[in-house]
Amino acid sequence: MEFTKAWLQYHSIKGVKETEGSEESKTEITIYNEHKCDITKSAVEELQMALASLYGSRIALAQNEAEFQSATAGIRLVLNTSLGLGQEGYHIRSAQGKITISASGEAGLLYGAFALLRKLQLDQVPDLMTFTWEEEKIPANPFRMLNHWDNMDGEIERGYSGKSFFFEKEEILINDRTKAYARMIASVGINALTINNVNVKGAATELISDRYYDKLDKLSGLFAAYGIKLYLSINFAAPIDLGGLTTADPCDSRVCDWWNRKAQEIWERLPLLGGFLVKADSEGRSGPFTYGRTHADGANMLAQAVKPYGGLIIWRCFVYNCQQDWRDLKTDRAKAGYDHFMPIDGKFADNVILQIKNGPMDFQVREPISPLFGGLKKTNMMLEVQIAQEYTGQQMHVCYLIPWFKEILEFNTYCDEEHGTVADIISGKTYGNALAGMVAVTNTGNDSNWTGHDLAAANLYGFGRLAFDMTLASEEIAGEWISQTYGNEGKVQENIKKILLMSWPAYEKYTSPLGIGWMVKPNSHFGPDVDGYEYDRWGTYHKADHKAIGLDRTMKGTGYTGQYNEPLASIYGELTRCPEELLLFFHRVEYDYVLSSGKTLLQHIYDTHFEGAQEAELFVRLWEELQGMIEEETYQRVLQRLNFQREHAKEWCDVINSYFYRKTLIPDAQGRTLY
Amino acid sequence: MEFTKAWLQYHSIKGVKETEGSEESKTEITIYNEHKCDITKSAVEELQMALASLYGSRIALAQNEAEFQSATAGIRLVLNTSLGLGQEGYHIRSAQGKITISASGEAGLLYGAFALLRKLQLDQVPDLMTFTWEEEKIPANPFRMLNHWDNMDGEIERGYSGKSFFFEKEEILINDRTKAYARMIASVGINALTINNVNVKGAATELISDRYYDKLDKLSGLFAAYGIKLYLSINFAAPIDLGGLTTADPCDSRVCDWWNRKAQEIWERLPLLGGFLVKADSEGRSGPFTYGRTHADGANMLAQAVKPYGGLIIWRCFVYNCQQDWRDLKTDRAKAGYDHFMPIDGKFADNVILQIKNGPMDFQVREPISPLFGGLKKTNMMLEVQIAQEYTGQQMHVCYLIPWFKEILEFNTYCDEEHGTVADIISGKTYGNALAGMVAVTNTGNDSNWTGHDLAAANLYGFGRLAFDMTLASEEIAGEWISQTYGNEGKVQENIKKILLMSWPAYEKYTSPLGIGWMVKPNSHFGPDVDGYEYDRWGTYHKADHKAIGLDRTMKGTGYTGQYNEPLASIYGELTRCPEELLLFFHRVEYDYVLSSGKTLLQHIYDTHFEGAQEAELFVRLWEELQGMIEEETYQRVLQRLNFQREHAKEWCDVINSYFYRKTLIPDAQGRTLY
Repeated sequence: MEFTKAWLQYHSIKGVKETEGSEESKTEITIYNEHKCDITKSAVEELQMALASLYGSRIALAQNEAEFQSATAGIRLVLNTSLGLGQEGYHIRSAQGKITISASGEAGLLYGAFALLRKLQLDQVPDLMTFTWEEEKIPANPFRMLNHWDNMDGEIERGYSGKSFFFEKEEILINDRTKAYARMIASVGINALTINNVNVKGAATELISDRYYDKLDKLSGLFAAYGIKLYLSINFAAPIDLGGLTTADPCDSRVCDWWNRKAQEIWERLPLLGGFLVKADSEGRSGPFTYGRTHADGANMLAQAVKPYGGLIIWRCFVYNCQQDWRDLKTDRAKAGYDHFMPIDGKFADNVILQIKNGPMDFQVREPISPLFGGLKKTNMMLEVQIAQEYTGQQMHVCYLIPWFKEILEFNTYCDEEHGTVADIISGKTYGNALAGMVAVTNTGNDSNWTGHDLAAANLYGFGRLAFDMTLASEEIAGEWISQTYGNEGKVQENIKKILLMSWPAYEKYTSPLGIGWMVKPNSHFGPDVDGYEYDRWGTYHKADHKAIGLDRTMKGTGYTGQYNEPLASIYGELTRCPEELLLFFHRVEYDYVLSSGKTLLQHIYDTHFEGAQEAELFVRLWEELQGMIEEETYQRVLQRLNFQREHAKEWCDVINSYFYRKTLIPDAQGRTLY
Repeated sequence: MEFTKAWLQYHSIKGVKETEGSEESKTEITIYNEHKCDITKSAVEELQMALASLYGSRIALAQNEAEFQSATAGIRLVLNTSLGLGQEGYHIRSAQGKITISASGEAGLLYGAFALLRKLQLDQVPDLMTFTWEEEKIPANPFRMLNHWDNMDGEIERGYSGKSFFFEKEEILINDRTKAYARMIASVGINALTINNVNVKGAATELISDRYYDKLDKLSGLFAAYGIKLYLSINFAAPIDLGGLTTADPCDSRVCDWWNRKAQEIWERLPLLGGFLVKADSEGRSGPFTYGRTHADGANMLAQAVKPYGGLIIWRCFVYNCQQDWRDLKTDRAKAGYDHFMPIDGKFADNVILQIKNGPMDFQVREPISPLFGGLKKTNMMLEVQIAQEYTGQQMHVCYLIPWFKEILEFNTYCDEEHGTVADIISGKTYGNALAGMVAVTNTGNDSNWTGHDLAAANLYGFGRLAFDMTLASEEIAGEWISQTYGNEGKVQENIKKILLMSWPAYEKYTSPLGIGWMVKPNSHFGPDVDGYEYDRWGTYHKADHKAIGLDRTMKGTGYTGQYNEPLASIYGELTRCPEELLLFFHRVEYDYVLSSGKTLLQHIYDTHFEGAQEAELFVRLWEELQGMIEEETYQRVLQRLNFQREHAKEWCDVINSYFYRKTLIPDAQGRTLY
């Protein structure tokens, strides 16, 4: 199957071509690398290919320092363990045609190479001789991970970009695309991934068996050459489903023995494996609760088994009652994560990391930050976000999520006076832990353009870049991605950047208002259905009636606000101090309540929905201005999706507004049509 | 796979056993049949087996009239073409131990045999010697048909009783169950059936090809031995999908030629085939509209092809726009059938029968009668009902539909002064046509009890009996079915009859009110979702707002009432004259409108829903009283479903009531909890 180069296009740099003459007169760029490991080989290979493409140059490989020094222009990779940049940091210095990339670890050299290539493209450096630059970076987060939700039959759970490129008919695929993917994600600093769905069933349970070890070994090696560690999602009930035991009780010695032996076997066969990702006691998956044990019991049992091999256990905190009665007005799903995990803070083994979704619900377009981030103090944590656009348009809508991730990272949890932001916590700064980081449920599949919607690639690119350097601005990341994908043309930059930066706010405007979430069609999660989850078992209710909407989550209501540190608990708890974008998450509010804009809540809903739909129309016009500047096939593919989005945004707008109009019979102040 | 005998239990008759002595002293019953055809053989086989079981008798077969006359007790089958009872009528006369079943056709003898067996069981006749009886019956409807919606992969579209017993992995099944099924449906007078889904795709298109002829021939023979004609659902696009043509245009001579040759081939291989059933231009199926032709063009082209072989074309009228915009307030799906077919009344060939659903929408728990019945005057018609409980509880709820079918049949369309009821029209009485009758989308599958819910078998039994004799009362049919299935015990009769007769009204009460329909979960059609179809493309809207609910279908609204004959058009058109059970189908009504009961519309909704849910509770209690009187496995299986129904009825009640409460904020007059 064909696939694009995504942002690894390496378009030739403007200005270079004009000075080009005959083959002989081509500039020569010399690369010198004395290190033999796979990762530096990958770096050199990338530099060779990229520089040839960017500059139309001949590329020479120097055999020794002297050869390099005598070259006109060149790049040198230097491993220097005394630099103090960790395994993944790098230093780049460019002067008089010579560029030195130094690092204390092999991965640092690879990241330095990608950083250099990015810089050359962004600045459109026409000539290395005059390129003077110095940069030193250490990745902000120890873990920068992707989770694939790929099933062994080739389907992807919540996948919107075709089928899996890891699995087909219960077999593991390793081909050109695999390496292309490794290059892509390494180029933005991803250093860990899982390939199989967290809902581990059927053949996926057997990934940790002889059936798949050979292929997995090969795959882990391929990724390792790009500084990426392979992890596997495992089935907590594997001792039963795979081992033939009658229990998976983490406190049963037969179960511990089984896992101990299994871990030994796994690492004998897969020495490069990073560890396991576990979804337990969640949405029908087995877990420690099945046996009356805590999640610490479950995680630690596994942690102990994998510890001899340096293995890690990544444990998801997405645990709640998905069999709630909608008539039960006391249970609040938002409280579940904190209620389950706070009491066991400090009980987890040191090779366990909790993987916590950004919000307390499930990747809605707007949620408050999970109170676990400000709560847990003695437990390794990672932030989980979702670039698979399950609730944000499923890659049929453009929705650039990096601005949202920035808000999440910059959020002050008040857990610490100096280092209280989510970024501080999940990077290990607050509590000094080394096992920390960011993970995204990824958005790729075997569609030719990787992400279904071409513009959705900005989320994959952006997630990696942001996880590597949390100080980058959303706009900066967008600009980088556009340059490398579509080139530096002013109009292309301007219009695509406009679309990307407007897209998340627009999506929020034309879908569910002010943090209430969940007004989507059940199961598919695509398209509007205001009451779709209202009378169902998932704990996701808006309780809209003729007068008001929302759940009271203050201390007078479900008490959810009490899970936050002060002053957040108070701020969220007071209607007038609560950030308005989250108003309906925390409060039950009457439609005639007046917002800071001077508009009533209802008029705000009407207005934002009409606005959002109009913005989706604007995306089409902005894109149409680019015809001829974007390769035609890509242009048409994106245009088609933007046109769909325009229609679908109008559908969203009309359904939501009509729903509230029918409930209230209060007309729109501007007299627009409601149905 | 095991299966039950359903209502063909032939429990031994009370009082017989007591007089029984040794094997020798057993009564002997003699059967005399001089006819050799398969159908009378089936009748004799059934009598032999049944009488042995009912009376514990020895069964003898007389070789000639003299042997029969000299027997003590016996049954004689006599074919007499001068009786004037048609091919399917029968006469039975019993006196002094001798019973004569006479008929003008073989099928009549079979129906007579089943009628006799039924009578013996219902009356619990202990001794044939004292049994004096005379009955003459001609079936009311020429066609008494079942439609299976079975797919070739073994799944059943809208099937709630397991998988298909006709198809598995694209192969046709013929086994013990097939014959058991033929006996079952012949016993209630079914004389035609289709086995494959009306949505004909994939392998099902190839049923009319060499791939399946041999098996189909065998199957048609098996059914023919029970007086049942096999029909096939066909794909209107078969000339393309099967024939490799580029069109299926009914006015293209290549298409006509293809069908002509295909029909010749089919009847050469399947001489017993009855004809084709066609779903065209409906919900994504190809049809004449694709080529700008009328449905008469489409049906007549096929009719002409099958005519040389006595074949018939059964043409479904379920044609509407399933891509409607919910914002379009003018289009009314209810009008579609009449709009499409009235203009071509009289244009259909005489071997075409239109198959018309009872209502203008789609098998909702309450709909007005399709105006096509009162409209068409020069076209063969059949009434289509659905005993597969797609919208009436999916065989998880008990819902005995015969009372509803009785209402449909007795409905006066005012198309004729003397013979204006639906029963008159569809039996051929009104216009004197021979191609007429009733068809049900059936409710069977390979579950051991045939119908998933044991009590759902009453609908299969009842449909057949009613189609045979439209004068039978619902209660009478229920009594017959209970007797033959569970015996004649007073309490068993009483309680099951109570459950059955209460069940349709109860289901109507706790689901969508007053004819509005469609408040179900999309796709599955199971469980409440008031707005589930409200903002969708299916043309099924209730438009509930804070003040009112319903679509105005009068001449001031969509004009649907104009499709009825007077006085119906006027009656339906006036709010105060409209039958209240259909009020919300025809009118937009404010919640404070006062009904004939003196209650407001809203309070009526609240009350009926609470009532319906209570009645579902009562079903459990009524059933529990039968423990010990019903075979335990059956008892438990039914109990489980009734318990589910009780819970689910409460869910329905609470969701519907809460929906309206939230919309209006008007509390229940009795202060019951609304959420």
